[in-house]
Amino acid sequence: MQYKISDKMAVMKPSAIREIFKSLGTPGAISFAAGNPAPESFPIEAIKEISANILENDAVTALQYSVTEGYPKLRALIKKRISEKFSVGTADDETIITSGGQQGIELACKALCNIGDAVICENPSFIGSLNSFRSNGARPVGVPLEDDGINIEKLEEALIAEGEKAKIIYVIPTFQNPAGITTSLEKRKKIYALAQKYDVVIIEDNPYGDLRFDGEDVPTIKSMDTDGRVIYCGSFSKILSAGMRIGFACANNELIQKMVVAKQVEDVHTNIFFQMVCAEYMEKYDLDAHIEKIRDLYRAKCHLMLDCLDKYMPEQLKFTRPEGGLFILCTLPGGIKLSDFIARASEQKVFVVPGTAFNCDESAPSDSFRLNYSMPSNEEIEKGIRILGDIIKDMLK
Amino acid sequence: MQYKISDKMAVMKPSAIREIFKSLGTPGAISFAAGNPAPESFPIEAIKEISANILENDAVTALQYSVTEGYPKLRALIKKRISEKFSVGTADDETIITSGGQQGIELACKALCNIGDAVICENPSFIGSLNSFRSNGARPVGVPLEDDGINIEKLEEALIAEGEKAKIIYVIPTFQNPAGITTSLEKRKKIYALAQKYDVVIIEDNPYGDLRFDGEDVPTIKSMDTDGRVIYCGSFSKILSAGMRIGFACANNELIQKMVVAKQVEDVHTNIFFQMVCAEYMEKYDLDAHIEKIRDLYRAKCHLMLDCLDKYMPEQLKFTRPEGGLFILCTLPGGIKLSDFIARASEQKVFVVPGTAFNCDESAPSDSFRLNYSMPSNEEIEKGIRILGDIIKDMLK
Repeated sequence: MQYKISDKMAVMKPSAIREIFKSLGTPGAISFAAGNPAPESFPIEAIKEISANILENDAVTALQYSVTEGYPKLRALIKKRISEKFSVGTADDETIITSGGQQGIELACKALCNIGDAVICENPSFIGSLNSFRSNGARPVGVPLEDDGINIEKLEEALIAEGEKAKIIYVIPTFQNPAGITTSLEKRKKIYALAQKYDVVIIEDNPYGDLRFDGEDVPTIKSMDTDGRVIYCGSFSKILSAGMRIGFACANNELIQKMVVAKQVEDVHTNIFFQMVCAEYMEKYDLDAHIEKIRDLYRAKCHLMLDCLDKYMPEQLKFTRPEGGLFILCTLPGGIKLSDFIARASEQKVFVVPGTAFNCDESAPSDSFRLNYSMPSNEEIEKGIRILGDIIKDMLK
Repeated sequence: MQYKISDKMAVMKPSAIREIFKSLGTPGAISFAAGNPAPESFPIEAIKEISANILENDAVTALQYSVTEGYPKLRALIKKRISEKFSVGTADDETIITSGGQQGIELACKALCNIGDAVICENPSFIGSLNSFRSNGARPVGVPLEDDGINIEKLEEALIAEGEKAKIIYVIPTFQNPAGITTSLEKRKKIYALAQKYDVVIIEDNPYGDLRFDGEDVPTIKSMDTDGRVIYCGSFSKILSAGMRIGFACANNELIQKMVVAKQVEDVHTNIFFQMVCAEYMEKYDLDAHIEKIRDLYRAKCHLMLDCLDKYMPEQLKFTRPEGGLFILCTLPGGIKLSDFIARASEQKVFVVPGTAFNCDESAPSDSFRLNYSMPSNEEIEKGIRILGDIIKDMLK
C-alpha cells in the first residue's frame, strides 16, 4: 500500500537529538549531545522508599484510571511551589499535570494554532518544541537570540509581518536550550509588552529554572502576567527524574480547560503512580536541599567544561557562559564548515548536536554546536573537549 | 485577554465519561459509567516485587530519558505475544509503545489525516477515539453498528460518498465499546476487502481482546493484512494496570516511523519504569494465568448483570449480551426520553453513560445507554439494575 501521510506529518523528520541518542551505544563514545540530567541527580533511595510505600498503602489509586487534569494533591503542591519560587499563578490561573514539559507546549499550540499560524521563537530554539509546533501545522518563525535574550526590534518586526497569523511567542528565558543564555529582566518586560501590543500569547518554557548555579534569579515573565497571557510550562525531568515523564503547565483557567480536552484525547492522563511519587517527595522530603545538590554538581561540571574550553579551544571559537541549566553553545570560527567538523568529531567518537537542529528554518545553515555537561563524567569532559579543540585547531590550519 | 482558540479545539467538549468520572465521589453512588478495570484485577503483589527489583538493580535506566519507540525488551515481548495470540505482525511491521492505547489511535490519525478528512467509524463508537479524530481536524463519519458488526452496505456507501477524503476505517471488532458487540469473521473479511477496494487504512482497536469469557475467538482483521493496511492498537490497561498508561501499536514500519515522530513531539517517550514493569511481568510471571483470573471475574460480573437485567427490566428494554470486554449497551423502549431517564437515574445516584456521548454526530439523538460491569461490586450491580428497572417501568406507565 502507498500511504497518504498527512501534510503536517509528511514534512517532519525525527529529532536529530533523539536519533543521536540512539547511536550512543558505541563503546568509548563521549556524548555531549544528550540533554539528559546526570544519573547521580536522581534521588533513587527516596523514590525506592516512596514507591514501596505507595504500593503498600494506596496501590489501587496508583494503578487505576485517574483524572486528566492530574493528581489533585500534586497540582496543589506545584501551585504552592511555583507561586513561592517563581511568583507564578494568579486566582484566575489553573495547573494541569502533563506527560513531561514537552506535552504542555504541544497542548498549548494545539489549543491555539490553526494550520499556517506562526509561533515566533528565539532562533536557535529547542527542537522538541519547534517540532511540536510543526506537528500542529504551525510555522516556527525565528528571531535572532542575543547574549541577553531575543532581539526585541526583530521580534516586533516579526509580529508586524505575521499580523493575524501570529498566535504565540515561544521563549525559554532562563538557561535557554540550546544557548544556555538567560534573558535580561529588561527584555522580559519588553517581550511581555509586545505580546500585549500585538495581542498574542506567550509560552514561557522553564524546565531549567531551578538549576541556577551562578548569578542572581531573574523574575519569570509569568510573574508579570496581568492579563492571563502567559502559559508557563515546567517539569520534574531535571530535578527528580526524566524517565517518569511528569511536567505541568500553569495558565488562565480557560486555556487550561482547552489543554485538558486536548490531553484527554492524547493519553487520557499522565501515569498516576509517578504523580503520587512526586507529591510524596515534595511533602516528605526536602526538594530544595536535593536541588541544591544538583546545582553544586552542575556548577562543577559546567565550570570544568568552560575551563577546558578556555584551555583547549583556539581563541577564535566563541562560546556562551551559562549561569545554570545544561547547555553551552559554541560558534565555530569562520571558514570551518559545521558538517565537516561534526563528521570529524563523530569519527573520533565525540558527539555534539549541530546547530542546524535548532534552527526555526530547517534549511538554514549554522556555524554553532551544542554541548551538554550534565551527563558526561569529568574525565569525558576533559578528554572530549581536548579532542574537539584539536580538531578545530587542525581545521584552522 | 480574549483567547483565539484553534478551529479544531474550539468545537471540542470534555469527554462526557471523564466528566462523569470526576463526580463519582458522591457517597452511596453506584457507577456503571466508568470503563475502569476491576481494582482486584491489578496484580499488586507482583508489581510491588518487580518495582522494588527494578529500583534496586536498574534504577538509572528506569528514571532516565529513553527512546521514543519504547523499551526494546518490551517491544520484543509484545511482538512475540501478539503474533502468538492474535496472529498480528509481519516482517514488514514494527511495534511502538504508546502512552495507553488511546495514544496509538491519536498518533495514527495525526499521521494520516488532514483537516476535513473522514474517519469512518462504527456508530456508536468509543468517545476517546472520536475526540482524538476531532482534535486532529478529522471528521468521524458514523456507520450503523449491527449485532454482528458494522453495516457493510452502509460502510461502502460512506466510502463512496467520502471519496478521497476517506482516510481511515476505525473499528473495535472485539467486545466493542460501547456496545459489547463482536464483529463476525465474515464481516471482518468484508471490512478488509472494502479497505482494499477503496484504498484506505484500517485502525483495529483491540484493548479488550484478551478478555473473552464466553464463546470462541474470532481472528483479528490485522491477521488478514496482506498489504500493510491495518494499524493494530492494544493496551495493558485492562490486563495489568490502567494508571500506568502503557499501550502499543503494530503496523507497517513506514507508518510506525511517522507515529514515532508524532509521539516525540507529544511526550518524548512513555514512562520507562512501567515499560520495564510490563516487560518483567511478561518474562517472569504468568500473564496468561493472570488474564484467566480476570476473565473468571468478568464472566461472573457480566452474567450477574445480565441476570439482573433479565429479572428487573421490562421486556421492552433491549440489551446486548457480550462474550467479553467491559460493557453492555441497553436500548430504551420507545417513548422514553434518554435525558429524562439519565436525570432520574442520577437523582437516585445510579450513573450510566448516555448513548449520545458515543455518537459520531454529536448533535444526533440516542435511545441507548452504556453499562459497565467490571468496576461495581456484585451488590451494586444487583441494587443498581433494580433501581434502573424500577425507573424504566415507572416511565412506561
